[in-house]
Amino acid sequence: MGKNFSDSFLSSECIIRMASGWFYLSCLVLGSLGSMCILFTVYWMQYWHDGFAWNGSIYMFNWHPVLMVAGMVVFYGGASLVYRLPQSWVGPKLPWKLLHASLHLMAFVLTVVGLVAVFTFHNHGRIANLYTLHSWLGITTVFLFACQWFLGFAVFLLPWASMWLRSLLKPIHVFFGAAILSLSIASVISGINEKLFFSLKNSTKPYSSLPSEAVFANSTGMLVVAFGLLVLYILLASSWKRPEPGILTDSQPLLHDGE
Amino acid sequence: MGKNFSDSFLSSECIIRMASGWFYLSCLVLGSLGSMCILFTVYWMQYWHDGFAWNGSIYMFNWHPVLMVAGMVVFYGGASLVYRLPQSWVGPKLPWKLLHASLHLMAFVLTVVGLVAVFTFHNHGRIANLYTLHSWLGITTVFLFACQWFLGFAVFLLPWASMWLRSLLKPIHVFFGAAILSLSIASVISGINEKLFFSLKNSTKPYSSLPSEAVFANSTGMLVVAFGLLVLYILLASSWKRPEPGILTDSQPLLHDGE
Repeated sequence: MGKNFSDSFLSSECIIRMASGWFYLSCLVLGSLGSMCILFTVYWMQYWHDGFAWNGSIYMFNWHPVLMVAGMVVFYGGASLVYRLPQSWVGPKLPWKLLHASLHLMAFVLTVVGLVAVFTFHNHGRIANLYTLHSWLGITTVFLFACQWFLGFAVFLLPWASMWLRSLLKPIHVFFGAAILSLSIASVISGINEKLFFSLKNSTKPYSSLPSEAVFANSTGMLVVAFGLLVLYILLASSWKRPEPGILTDSQPLLHDGE
Repeated sequence: MGKNFSDSFLSSECIIRMASGWFYLSCLVLGSLGSMCILFTVYWMQYWHDGFAWNGSIYMFNWHPVLMVAGMVVFYGGASLVYRLPQSWVGPKLPWKLLHASLHLMAFVLTVVGLVAVFTFHNHGRIANLYTLHSWLGITTVFLFACQWFLGFAVFLLPWASMWLRSLLKPIHVFFGAAILSLSIASVISGINEKLFFSLKNSTKPYSSLPSEAVFANSTGMLVVAFGLLVLYILLASSWKRPEPGILTDSQPLLHDGE
């Protein structure tokens, strides 16, 4: 028993350590990119659009891009990667499920506050809601996110669902997780583009002359794309996936022991 | 040998037939959605923007949305799914590789002609190129597509690359295939949004009053999203994947026979 147990234990430890090195390097890049996405959006709104308020004015609108980038892209992306943490590969899954669901709930709250900001600004200034393709896609993405969260909570966190139902829905849950992030990126790109058309419309330096605001906001959009692609790569294509039950679980050496 | 061979053959046949039924139903939905994406874009440009020409005028620009939707989304999406055809699961892979590369080359040619249309229109009318976020993302996506095609051609079609290199690059090729389609969708969404801001700017019925053109073009954008998501689902999450060598290949019964 002793040799089998220590071999399995050492091999699990070794795999986790090797995977951890690269994973944490990627986390560092991801954390830096994600922070830059949020900070760049804050700076854009602060420097070129005079900052933030919560009073129905244009300064209330300025929360919208910041909260959507933070909620639908950065927090959402981070929350998606919980099961790629090598620590989550061994031991009980429940604490990681709770972390996954809680982080996504935080992302959803930021998103909803971001929507409240733009709807309140529109209603206050008697501006029409939901007429651009950006808004049609954005609201569809948030609706899909809400469905995904509630379905995930009901099927994977509450105890009633059978293993059969969970294994049937898991690939669909993973696919829609990635799909919603892709649609968020498309919404953010069209949103930044649209905002620049609005804000540089009557400017002495129009969008077509690429003033500093345009270069800065375009670059912020490209950063969001880079962050999103890195999250999707780690989520879908990397080898940092929690192994199937029985490969690296705590109980494996005990089962071997019984043989 | 006879029983083993016929059992394996029947089971392969059975799996392929079962998979084929659902696959062709999805192909029908996909084909209809893809055709609608192209036809809706043609109708938008024909009915609200007076059709097409190849003379540097705004009618030359009108080719741009049609060719980008056709090339970067519909043909690209169709070409990506070649290895999901159940017929491609058995027998030699080379003819399917040639089909995959040729269809993507057609998609790339349509895309380049679509770029020529917009650059010629801009240069003819002394309009700046590449200043919007839509254009930054779009040109990056086309550049990634070109890299992906040439790398795929060099590594997977030409005979010099080792199996080790091919199996190392395959998941990266599949990931970037899906990523480029996602970025194409983001580019198309921001492009349709931008075009509506331009064309409804001085209209008696502005974009915010949702005139028929806006409803039609927004719906076209949402159709492109639906098409793209279905392609990504079949590509990444479905079970219609060519099995690993040795599971359904012609040579399997012979290998069994030798046991």
